[in-house]
Amino acid sequence: MSAAPEVIVAVEVADIRFPTSLQLDGSDAMNPEPDYSATYVTVRTSGGAAGYGLAFTVGRGNDVQVAAVRALAPLVVGLPVADVLGDLGGFSRRLTGDSQLRWLGPEKGAIHMAAGAIVNAVWDLYGRREGKPVWRLLSELTPDQLVDLVDFRYLQDALTRAEALAILRRAEAGRAERTALLLERGYPAYTTTPGWLGYSDDKLVRLAKEAVADGFPLIKLKVGADLGGDVRRMRLAREAVGEHVHIAVDANQAWGVDQAIDWMTQLAPYRPYWIEEPTSPDDILGHAAIRRAIAPIKVATGEHVHNQVMFKQLLQAGALDVLQLDASRTAGVTENIAILLLAAKFDVPVCPHAGGVGLCEMVQHLAMFDYVAVSGTMQNRIIEYVDHLHEHFTDPVHVRGGRYLAPAAAGISARIHPSSVAEHRFPDGPVWSVDGDGVSGPHPLAGAPGLSTARTAQ
Amino acid sequence: MSAAPEVIVAVEVADIRFPTSLQLDGSDAMNPEPDYSATYVTVRTSGGAAGYGLAFTVGRGNDVQVAAVRALAPLVVGLPVADVLGDLGGFSRRLTGDSQLRWLGPEKGAIHMAAGAIVNAVWDLYGRREGKPVWRLLSELTPDQLVDLVDFRYLQDALTRAEALAILRRAEAGRAERTALLLERGYPAYTTTPGWLGYSDDKLVRLAKEAVADGFPLIKLKVGADLGGDVRRMRLAREAVGEHVHIAVDANQAWGVDQAIDWMTQLAPYRPYWIEEPTSPDDILGHAAIRRAIAPIKVATGEHVHNQVMFKQLLQAGALDVLQLDASRTAGVTENIAILLLAAKFDVPVCPHAGGVGLCEMVQHLAMFDYVAVSGTMQNRIIEYVDHLHEHFTDPVHVRGGRYLAPAAAGISARIHPSSVAEHRFPDGPVWSVDGDGVSGPHPLAGAPGLSTARTAQ
Repeated sequence: MSAAPEVIVAVEVADIRFPTSLQLDGSDAMNPEPDYSATYVTVRTSGGAAGYGLAFTVGRGNDVQVAAVRALAPLVVGLPVADVLGDLGGFSRRLTGDSQLRWLGPEKGAIHMAAGAIVNAVWDLYGRREGKPVWRLLSELTPDQLVDLVDFRYLQDALTRAEALAILRRAEAGRAERTALLLERGYPAYTTTPGWLGYSDDKLVRLAKEAVADGFPLIKLKVGADLGGDVRRMRLAREAVGEHVHIAVDANQAWGVDQAIDWMTQLAPYRPYWIEEPTSPDDILGHAAIRRAIAPIKVATGEHVHNQVMFKQLLQAGALDVLQLDASRTAGVTENIAILLLAAKFDVPVCPHAGGVGLCEMVQHLAMFDYVAVSGTMQNRIIEYVDHLHEHFTDPVHVRGGRYLAPAAAGISARIHPSSVAEHRFPDGPVWSVDGDGVSGPHPLAGAPGLSTARTAQ
Repeated sequence: MSAAPEVIVAVEVADIRFPTSLQLDGSDAMNPEPDYSATYVTVRTSGGAAGYGLAFTVGRGNDVQVAAVRALAPLVVGLPVADVLGDLGGFSRRLTGDSQLRWLGPEKGAIHMAAGAIVNAVWDLYGRREGKPVWRLLSELTPDQLVDLVDFRYLQDALTRAEALAILRRAEAGRAERTALLLERGYPAYTTTPGWLGYSDDKLVRLAKEAVADGFPLIKLKVGADLGGDVRRMRLAREAVGEHVHIAVDANQAWGVDQAIDWMTQLAPYRPYWIEEPTSPDDILGHAAIRRAIAPIKVATGEHVHNQVMFKQLLQAGALDVLQLDASRTAGVTENIAILLLAAKFDVPVCPHAGGVGLCEMVQHLAMFDYVAVSGTMQNRIIEYVDHLHEHFTDPVHVRGGRYLAPAAAGISARIHPSSVAEHRFPDGPVWSVDGDGVSGPHPLAGAPGLSTARTAQ
């Protein structure tokens, strides 16, 4: 009697929200009052195994994200685990190519982020099964196995399968040496902690100095709400960090193309290292125009760039100095392999977007894989770090002396403590049903949609 | 005692699906088995008035669309009607700019289509209040009123407010004359009815001949699944319609850039008029490369182009000969005014995407407004027409002799008969709970996600 094959039996999804808007952590020109949230996915198998992934959102709309995961779940439940793990490229295309669901994208928005959360959960399952962190699992796949994961249909005018193979084969020789170096020294990090718009000047200066003392080679300031304030904050930050620490700035899409050029010209005397999201993330030609106008200030974007076709064009158009991939904006690990290969082809460094909920935890695996097996270098590469909410994860990131230490635990590090999940469930978890004094009653933010809209509509 | 102001009291939403996959109506290279569906929105006021709008989808995922409308509803309920109708530009920005919900886009995917459905419902309310069809309502606004509706933030490098005003003022003189001509002669239509991939050769030839007899100057064929089959069908269609009727072809994103160029080179002997969606709708640079390679065959796209920033770039890059705006892919009437102005600035004709559920009904208003008050011409302009599902609308389109007759009823023509709504509610309406013989039981398509996935995954 042969045993029944192990199959995926459930795709569970939870709406988890953290009331971060109460502290103005994470405030920027477009996100004045975010409640950092996760559409938290658990994939379970008939063998009792599980994988964990998530899509990050900033509060309202996390319920739509949950609905999108539920819409994809029937495409996953019942599949044999061996078939899924044996063809993760096909699995990803199954989620992104469903002939009815793709109408909601295609390959963008809630349905694509939902695919990313599920794909990451399945990579987590794979890592746990192999007993390896995902960065190491990826770094030990052969070039042919990696290239098989990529959907080249819309990429071939910029990156062929043969070119991708050549990139990976070139990096193959040094894999062992770079793995050893990574385990010994970690990977460079920068911090956004000092720079949120909601912070006072004193807090900015204090946190900027702490960042330097902690060993970070780069800090980031949010800009774009008020030019005079930005000039003042940039000056204070430059004074606080000195001449040898980089200061990146981030406008979170606040500007039109010409406005971005004007604004950055005003900030140029304080030597910003890059301008991140100067305008609409969809505006490929706009980013290219801004880059031409403000060099040598670098142009960075990616956290809202929704798929590999957009990254392809940003690279083709010469619009980017820094590519900021995101763990779950696109279709997870699988699509990010393609994005890393595109970046390597165009010789543009990848500096992942992180922060939020679990993004630091997930993207470190991608950057480390890039170092070991794709670009083969850390030159001009750095991972964003924000010291928020890591305590909720079972395998939180470890950042020491301005560097991410390579994760050792199996999987993609996205598992949230069951107690944190229970506490932050929206809208019924205890965090959302008692106020700050622990007195039972509606949380000040629960059921208050539109509050921050009124502010942004001004 | 002053009367309380009239406010919006409800945003109702229904999941409506038509089991069109049973007939293979609407089958194409990427949508083998669509169930044409609508996320149907009713906006109600405290004065007892109502407006009707919808977002079109192709089946699974309509529930996600419904969740997205529900997420936006709290931003709408409670607003004074006079404030909304007095500042429809601000209303649209309120929906697309919510600081938390925009994370799901920004301005793309399910959340943006949901905004489009609500915005259209509010324009419908406005038209009903004024007793005018929306094309006429729009055509009677002043240039300043129209320009006030446009969000120029990300457009100004391609279209300034002053340029938009100049376009509208130039067209102002001839409005009355063109309105009279439109009422007398209607607006040109083309038909996609003969060309679905699921149809036999005999049915294709018969329907192509009927289309010519009905007075259509252009028919459209779906292509992209099989080159040999496409060549055969294109030859049959050319023989059926003769030399003086145009044949457009539509690949529904099936190809990469180089593949599109190769494929169209094979079809060129049969003189296709345009190739629609040759590749990913996100691939602006790819469309530009294809256009350069296959001229004089025209390049068309738009039904999946998710916002005005993408259309701006398609125009800037010289990627389009034909701009196919959609009624609810973008944020409805309001964003489409910006798109019409961009097209006029770049002198590219707008030929709206239609078909689906209610798209013919809605887009006719936009094309007619374009004729009367924006581009001022019907030259090289034509509206798609598919003879499906119109019987479910209270104000269905009237196409006679290959032309859309100008709608006379107030509103945007998107209202569905209450009986049709009740019958097609998913999953509990009678259409979805009895089989073809009227015997009670689950419909053959209900609860069968993944069926067509298996096909597209091949």
